[in-house]
Amino acid sequence: MASSSGTLASASSNRYAIIVAGGSGTRMGADRPKQFLELAGEPVLLHTLRRFADPVLSVVAIVLVLPADQFETWAQLCATYHIQLPHTVVAGGASRWASVRNGLAELASYPTGVVAVHDGVRPLTPVTVIENTYAAAATHGAAIAAVPPKDSVRGLSQQGSYALDRSRLRLVQTPQCFEINLLRRAYQLPELATFTDDASVVEDMHPIHLVAGDYCNLKITTPDDLLLAEALLRQQSAL
Amino acid sequence: MASSSGTLASASSNRYAIIVAGGSGTRMGADRPKQFLELAGEPVLLHTLRRFADPVLSVVAIVLVLPADQFETWAQLCATYHIQLPHTVVAGGASRWASVRNGLAELASYPTGVVAVHDGVRPLTPVTVIENTYAAAATHGAAIAAVPPKDSVRGLSQQGSYALDRSRLRLVQTPQCFEINLLRRAYQLPELATFTDDASVVEDMHPIHLVAGDYCNLKITTPDDLLLAEALLRQQSAL
Repeated sequence: MASSSGTLASASSNRYAIIVAGGSGTRMGADRPKQFLELAGEPVLLHTLRRFADPVLSVVAIVLVLPADQFETWAQLCATYHIQLPHTVVAGGASRWASVRNGLAELASYPTGVVAVHDGVRPLTPVTVIENTYAAAATHGAAIAAVPPKDSVRGLSQQGSYALDRSRLRLVQTPQCFEINLLRRAYQLPELATFTDDASVVEDMHPIHLVAGDYCNLKITTPDDLLLAEALLRQQSAL
Repeated sequence: MASSSGTLASASSNRYAIIVAGGSGTRMGADRPKQFLELAGEPVLLHTLRRFADPVLSVVAIVLVLPADQFETWAQLCATYHIQLPHTVVAGGASRWASVRNGLAELASYPTGVVAVHDGVRPLTPVTVIENTYAAAATHGAAIAAVPPKDSVRGLSQQGSYALDRSRLRLVQTPQCFEINLLRRAYQLPELATFTDDASVVEDMHPIHLVAGDYCNLKITTPDDLLLAEALLRQQSAL
């Protein structure tokens, strides 16, 4: 529907990725930030980067947002693991919002296209989920990966708690993909305390389309997550 | 606060457990119901049963609710694995609600106490979570284990989706513990399509108190869950 001259990107427009890795590692109780922890013999962040560098996705620019004091560590890891996947490293900000904004500024020279924002600590995202989210954003302007909750969900109230209809709820993952000019406009507005992800930054300007995510698309936030990720990778490589 | 003659059970009152295992295994793509799948060398359901039989909990009666056509399989597993944990087996009904009701009927001879309802396919529940949920139900009448969502949560709307405040939401686990007469009264009412767990059966009669669950308290519903459970058990036994 949308032409290359329209405000929505066409399905064939340029694709970009902003991978945000702001963790300090304190929640993991580990000796280094969780994006650098070893997963199946390689840093978590290398797994993540490799997913977006998959040739089938045709991503033309990958921006990695890291705390400035981790640049040196990442450079050493790139040397140690012979990482030759093209990407640009940009310094993060005081919040996730500020980090994404810095990543977006690095893409200023690209006039149109679709940009994915992705958690650096989601190393197992299936390439099909990434492809589907890019494609949906090209059609709808804004699309994010999400899955239905497996458990019953309750809301908290002053009296205790009450049941919610989980079939009307989704747990949000990344990638979150946006027509790049839509995301730029959203990031020109002031930061709000209610921003938890990029969908919440954009949603007042544009409806958020949901794409089927995957329960394997783990966010590594606890040592148990790393255990599961190891087990899933072992199983995938055994197939 | 509550005496043994009151409507709420005292902290020292009898404890019972209803373990509900209704799965047919079709969602797992396995050759047998998920409660019988092997986890670290033993059936999932044996792990679950063992948690509730832990002497520190002082549970006086455990009722296992199984589809009638699985009685034979369970009897064989009890022989094979030398399962000597005392429990009664009761036939399940057409729904989870009907199965719990059948389990509750088996406890008819006990006038007071606190009953836990637990998913048969949650084999890793920490005993401390079970203890805390029993104790909270003895004080508050109804208490369930739950954890905050790790991910952002969105609600579905006709226009797309909207962000919810995840700090006001909880993902529900089991055990769900109730003063037994409260649960009996709730199960005298007709079944509703909105019942997803026992908290939803009870909540119109009594506030539901939430107890901190555990992210390790997995419900085995997919092959990935079984992989994670294996990895968690390996780690626990290595400590």
